[in-house]
Amino acid sequence: MSLQISNNTKQMPASAIRKLVPFADAAKEQGVKVYHLNVGAPDIKSPQCAIDEVVRRCASMHHLSYTNSAGLMKLRKGLVEKYYKKIGIDIEVPELLVEVAGSEAFASAMQIAADRGDEIIVIEPYYTNYQTFAFLNGITLKAVPTSIDNDFRIPDISEFEKLVTDKTKAVLISNPCNPSGKLFSKEEMLAIGDFCRRHDLFLISDEVYREFCYTEEPHFSAMNIPGCEQNVILVDSVSKRYNLCGARIGCIVSHNKDVMAAALKFAQSRLCPPVFGQYSAIGALDTPQSYFDDVREEYIRRRDCAVKMLNSIPGVRASMPYGAFYTIAELPVDDAEDFVKWMLTDFRVDSQTTMVTPAASFYKTPGVGKRQVRIAYVLEVPELEKALDILAKGLSAYCSR
Amino acid sequence: MSLQISNNTKQMPASAIRKLVPFADAAKEQGVKVYHLNVGAPDIKSPQCAIDEVVRRCASMHHLSYTNSAGLMKLRKGLVEKYYKKIGIDIEVPELLVEVAGSEAFASAMQIAADRGDEIIVIEPYYTNYQTFAFLNGITLKAVPTSIDNDFRIPDISEFEKLVTDKTKAVLISNPCNPSGKLFSKEEMLAIGDFCRRHDLFLISDEVYREFCYTEEPHFSAMNIPGCEQNVILVDSVSKRYNLCGARIGCIVSHNKDVMAAALKFAQSRLCPPVFGQYSAIGALDTPQSYFDDVREEYIRRRDCAVKMLNSIPGVRASMPYGAFYTIAELPVDDAEDFVKWMLTDFRVDSQTTMVTPAASFYKTPGVGKRQVRIAYVLEVPELEKALDILAKGLSAYCSR
Repeated sequence: MSLQISNNTKQMPASAIRKLVPFADAAKEQGVKVYHLNVGAPDIKSPQCAIDEVVRRCASMHHLSYTNSAGLMKLRKGLVEKYYKKIGIDIEVPELLVEVAGSEAFASAMQIAADRGDEIIVIEPYYTNYQTFAFLNGITLKAVPTSIDNDFRIPDISEFEKLVTDKTKAVLISNPCNPSGKLFSKEEMLAIGDFCRRHDLFLISDEVYREFCYTEEPHFSAMNIPGCEQNVILVDSVSKRYNLCGARIGCIVSHNKDVMAAALKFAQSRLCPPVFGQYSAIGALDTPQSYFDDVREEYIRRRDCAVKMLNSIPGVRASMPYGAFYTIAELPVDDAEDFVKWMLTDFRVDSQTTMVTPAASFYKTPGVGKRQVRIAYVLEVPELEKALDILAKGLSAYCSR
Repeated sequence: MSLQISNNTKQMPASAIRKLVPFADAAKEQGVKVYHLNVGAPDIKSPQCAIDEVVRRCASMHHLSYTNSAGLMKLRKGLVEKYYKKIGIDIEVPELLVEVAGSEAFASAMQIAADRGDEIIVIEPYYTNYQTFAFLNGITLKAVPTSIDNDFRIPDISEFEKLVTDKTKAVLISNPCNPSGKLFSKEEMLAIGDFCRRHDLFLISDEVYREFCYTEEPHFSAMNIPGCEQNVILVDSVSKRYNLCGARIGCIVSHNKDVMAAALKFAQSRLCPPVFGQYSAIGALDTPQSYFDDVREEYIRRRDCAVKMLNSIPGVRASMPYGAFYTIAELPVDDAEDFVKWMLTDFRVDSQTTMVTPAASFYKTPGVGKRQVRIAYVLEVPELEKALDILAKGLSAYCSR
């Protein structure tokens, strides 16, 4: 025998979103400016009250000890009373546990819902790390397909029914959806809830983009599906809501006591969530509504700009998103990953280039999405225009090589 | 079928250290003061430079974005150049990756070393969360026993040899050891390194208590075992070193490129380590040596106080630790967990009580350690004296019920 890392880690898929980062880093080392439309890392200012709370706590800090594994009581109570109550989600403190961002919340939720060999139904395209955590836990994702050809419309529940086996344990959705930007209507949520109830499935609802909805109808949370109280596991995060991606604070919410007891065991194994981040999340609870209104308006401007510019590029079509801050665009190329990489290694306009994310890894069905990219419209309009102009020029140059 | 959480999470062991916390919380709600000797959460001041750096970053903060999954370059470089170089561990930046505290580091290390069904050799008693992560990943821990009867002396390497099968993939040690407080000598480390090399095993070395050594000999890191460069995976943390337990910043270090590539894949799946915490860790790099010297002296005083007082209680024996800030004590009771719980629910001296940790879960061998507790000597001597005095009185009352 020789010294070898485990087969499981050898076979673990690398993050499709992050694996091209070294090429971007190399470009930057050459002095190239890279416009990042590849990661959902917005440039919007964090609420000042969030940062101020960290400073205030630091001023009187003796030492930074562990908190309860479930998070600081002040944060848990604050989320229940100041945030969820305001948006019409009625929960008690024991039904909420602070997590190390949405990432830990959905990793735990998936393991709580399903054993090795079990299956979870997702809607494709989906957030790529769902696949990573499914792989690590031996869970198979079964995909309900949606397509750019019909604007990623969510199919009839009969498409979900077709996938049910005796191994199916949960449905996992992100709403608004990363990467397609689709938004589930109340009717769609009720139908999915009914489906989960009939088949005794958990409904893991990743709502980290809840504040980014661009329709007149309010966001309808899975937590408000009548009769689904025991089925729903809510995954949430402060990352996008308050532009505090680096705080690494999220939460898991459920009325189901067994779910919360299991979540606590996971939480105890990592001792406690990041405490400076918990302070920032406590401060963020006082963010005024005007902050969200302004951010929403800003994203509508960015979305409109992005979708219009993308669709004006010959051979490109992009769908109109109604939530989150992503759109999927189909490009006139055979292999979008090769194009994205080429933009980083070979193409510059005035020492600038643009980075987007190849979309194939958001799909379970082989081959689908190979010509697509995900565009995060996370830059201010003037910057976004520059970035997309470079993308258009790059595409033209790439296709006429 | 009915809606059920997964069998794996049902069977997952609850944290032995944290499962009695609700009884402590209940006592506090009654107005009882609880002396916490149960968790390794020291009361020593964090270095001011660590807190100052967070405040400094906050002052100019626009928004808190993700960092590279491997951590901020300034932190990685700083750890390599300002910390590890100073203590004689010679590494390059790509050989270090920032983790969400030691917890994530050893969870990743275990999965990198071993697949489901594989085995890892540990020395018993061991840190209880090793068992949790082994359980979650289907890894079997095989224990080399050490005993309070001979002061937890590390046995001859022949005891390790007896446990080797074709499933053995790693040896996992904590040095200094939580919970026994034992310290591996250079000779012992060389013997374990030789053993790992001969059998092509990884050596996962959890050295989070490195700064807490109470012998004249310097700590000998696994990173400095000649010829073991490809085998060693170092697990480290700022939690104990700088009394920044809540920062949730640690690192994984290895010369083995496959190990680091796998660690990066895990890191990418959770996007990035907590950023405020990374700032505090950058600030902490400027902690003067006098801080460590003072802390060390303080812990020697606490240790001497704790061991002396414990051994003066009739029927109690405690071993002398040479590292970390724990000692294991054997009590004149049949079931230490029952006693610990009783202290929280029934026993008070002037509305005060003391909490320690039942030690059975630190052992793999059934029944061993059932009469033992782990005592974390993490309070100042006057407080420690009060806490242990209450423990002594409680023990006397418990035994004469």
